[in-house]
Amino acid sequence: MKPLSYEHCQAMDRQDPLRGLKEMYQLPEGLVYLDGNSLGALPKTTQSRVTQAIQHEWGTELIRSWNSSGWFELPRKVGDKIAQLIGAHPGEVVATDTTSVNLFKVLATALSIAAADSPVKKKIVSERSNFPTDLYIAQAICKERGYELVLVDIQEQELGSVLLDDVAVLMLTHVNYRTGAMHNMREVSELAHGLGVLTVWDLAHSAGAVPVDLHSDGADFAVGCGYKYLNGGPGAPAFVWVHPKHVGRFWQPLAGWWGHIAPFDFSPGYVPSSSITRFQCGTQPILSLLALECGVDGFISAQELGGMHALREKSLALTDLFMRLVDERLTPYGISIVTPREPEGRGSHVGLVEREGAYEIIQALAARGVVGDFRAGDGEQYPDILRFGFTPLYLGFSDVWNAVDHFHKVMQTEEWRHSRFAHKNAVT
Amino acid sequence: MKPLSYEHCQAMDRQDPLRGLKEMYQLPEGLVYLDGNSLGALPKTTQSRVTQAIQHEWGTELIRSWNSSGWFELPRKVGDKIAQLIGAHPGEVVATDTTSVNLFKVLATALSIAAADSPVKKKIVSERSNFPTDLYIAQAICKERGYELVLVDIQEQELGSVLLDDVAVLMLTHVNYRTGAMHNMREVSELAHGLGVLTVWDLAHSAGAVPVDLHSDGADFAVGCGYKYLNGGPGAPAFVWVHPKHVGRFWQPLAGWWGHIAPFDFSPGYVPSSSITRFQCGTQPILSLLALECGVDGFISAQELGGMHALREKSLALTDLFMRLVDERLTPYGISIVTPREPEGRGSHVGLVEREGAYEIIQALAARGVVGDFRAGDGEQYPDILRFGFTPLYLGFSDVWNAVDHFHKVMQTEEWRHSRFAHKNAVT
Repeated sequence: MKPLSYEHCQAMDRQDPLRGLKEMYQLPEGLVYLDGNSLGALPKTTQSRVTQAIQHEWGTELIRSWNSSGWFELPRKVGDKIAQLIGAHPGEVVATDTTSVNLFKVLATALSIAAADSPVKKKIVSERSNFPTDLYIAQAICKERGYELVLVDIQEQELGSVLLDDVAVLMLTHVNYRTGAMHNMREVSELAHGLGVLTVWDLAHSAGAVPVDLHSDGADFAVGCGYKYLNGGPGAPAFVWVHPKHVGRFWQPLAGWWGHIAPFDFSPGYVPSSSITRFQCGTQPILSLLALECGVDGFISAQELGGMHALREKSLALTDLFMRLVDERLTPYGISIVTPREPEGRGSHVGLVEREGAYEIIQALAARGVVGDFRAGDGEQYPDILRFGFTPLYLGFSDVWNAVDHFHKVMQTEEWRHSRFAHKNAVT
Repeated sequence: MKPLSYEHCQAMDRQDPLRGLKEMYQLPEGLVYLDGNSLGALPKTTQSRVTQAIQHEWGTELIRSWNSSGWFELPRKVGDKIAQLIGAHPGEVVATDTTSVNLFKVLATALSIAAADSPVKKKIVSERSNFPTDLYIAQAICKERGYELVLVDIQEQELGSVLLDDVAVLMLTHVNYRTGAMHNMREVSELAHGLGVLTVWDLAHSAGAVPVDLHSDGADFAVGCGYKYLNGGPGAPAFVWVHPKHVGRFWQPLAGWWGHIAPFDFSPGYVPSSSITRFQCGTQPILSLLALECGVDGFISAQELGGMHALREKSLALTDLFMRLVDERLTPYGISIVTPREPEGRGSHVGLVEREGAYEIIQALAARGVVGDFRAGDGEQYPDILRFGFTPLYLGFSDVWNAVDHFHKVMQTEEWRHSRFAHKNAVT
């Protein structure tokens, strides 16, 4: 096969029907931002929306904005928009709290349902390579309730051999935060349900990155993140979805007043709402929630160009191009790809391994205006990862070329050996 | 006693050493805003701080702002500032999540500590008149763990007679959200500790409203709200304090990665931080948290004028003036005061009762530019309340006069009988 060229990438950009979407985002000139899977870019609408909220809604309208500006309904309004991206129906999603807190709510609820159905179900199964906060939340809830958290390696173990009679819940992150490997939600759900196991999905690296179809794919519970692909801004509220058949069955334990059936009756006894709003708890951070709405609106705008399916097509083309260029130009330097090659098996980011200087390379790339990120391994099974996210809303094929070209220079000149760096810490 | 006059109130304003502080806030011209106990006013610094965060930190610096702009440390930084207002030490407070979520964390921890000390302790005691979300959270945790929530009326029952051997935790809101009645934290804590009961305090209507001295007053746990007196903006993050002697004893159940001792090690097992940061859970809404910091900074600025003690003195003078004017001018219309008269027994808001048209009166006052709020009673023991908050940072004595003057006209002309209204719902 003929080596790829910059001209080829430029041609791909010219033919890209989504190329105009990047005009919706405000990115520094010349920066190749491959970390939208960690903190999405700034939509151009966000500043004026937040300013309006500060000046007019808060500063002038003050307390009445809870009604007149729709603040109180905002978690449901934004939830309804997110629902469109994940195959949920209106009224089934709320944007609220954090992914970790929402995971706690749905795990607790799932365990209550499983316990009601069968008292022997005392285990949660998850992946050893899951994002740590998911494991921590599950670990704490297991400790609290006398359950066991079983961690498996799905690459090595057959899921069916693990989901035994004593398993209540299978908790998976749909797209792995390190490798980008994506589960087949439908197959996994069918398998789990056939074995009497409920499924809880973390969509942190899926919502806005790949089409998700919670209903068709048979999910039971899902949570996800607002500040990654959804471009909601730093620490934007997360979201939670519960299949309608499960919503009304049990209290979730964070039974705050926003989950009450009539919060403004101020009655001393808790009566949960019959809908997803029972998964709300306390008063939400409105400025951050409005910024999240602006982020999600970018996807609503993209619907006329084919929405998530068109974005997915471009995302696959971007990651495919990146992997081909890595193969061609970086393999000689000992760099390998840990992300699955098959389209149906990967999300919208790519993980690379370089044994010696993964962190320093990320720093050297950043110094050249190519922003990816570093994810530490566990010192044993999982190596350090160089992670590159490809957000089709604002990236083009030439960006991919430029990224790999800089990467190649960093390796060729060994400038990464001299790169200076500050922190390894950045919120995923 | 000679009736009070507007001139008298104007003179009080001229003599007020804190009168200049209101210049820090952006309030609509002519509005008398007596609802800062529900949603605090907008500090003039907030807009530019949030704009800087959107444009520079997010838009330009992107992911690296987690370190370079100090986003990751922000809950601790803002927590340290709040600590100064509530008698806590640096490193003991984090600004995070919501009051309801934080209450869940500390209640769960308190129950674990109590259970370790004595297995017979299976009750939480609170007040029937507590803010509902506190009761709901306690109710849910009791349901979950097989505890009982006992609600008492502290006006009628001696606390000592209720705190029996089987009581683990006494959960109180320091200043009642309806009546403004304030508990004596030191006396209550001493009594509780003498009976082997831990204390959990909700400072929602205290932080920034009255001096709080958690250490001196012997509190065990405290949570509070960022969007009321602290002027953090709609739904600003809340805060949580735990006495250092309790911090390291148990996991709190929302064991998310921000509470891990080394979150960026991404290790699969949860090891909680040894400090208050273990009461963090997931990624925080940075825009809202920065707005909260601007709100709290107003109090830091006020320190050179005497800080919380000077603010308290003015607050008492404001509520005293209000109550005297209500006595003089509104009692004839059947309006009565439910807030305790003695200074040590009340916070910074005043609750009034008018049996017939409390809600309509609040609407008629709002139409005249006097904003208080309405809190529904329970139809039985607690009447509907007209609530008026007095925030000494931005209110003057003439404002109090004007408020009562409008109130008097509303009653005299009975214009409240014709007031049109929309929603009864507004977030406390």
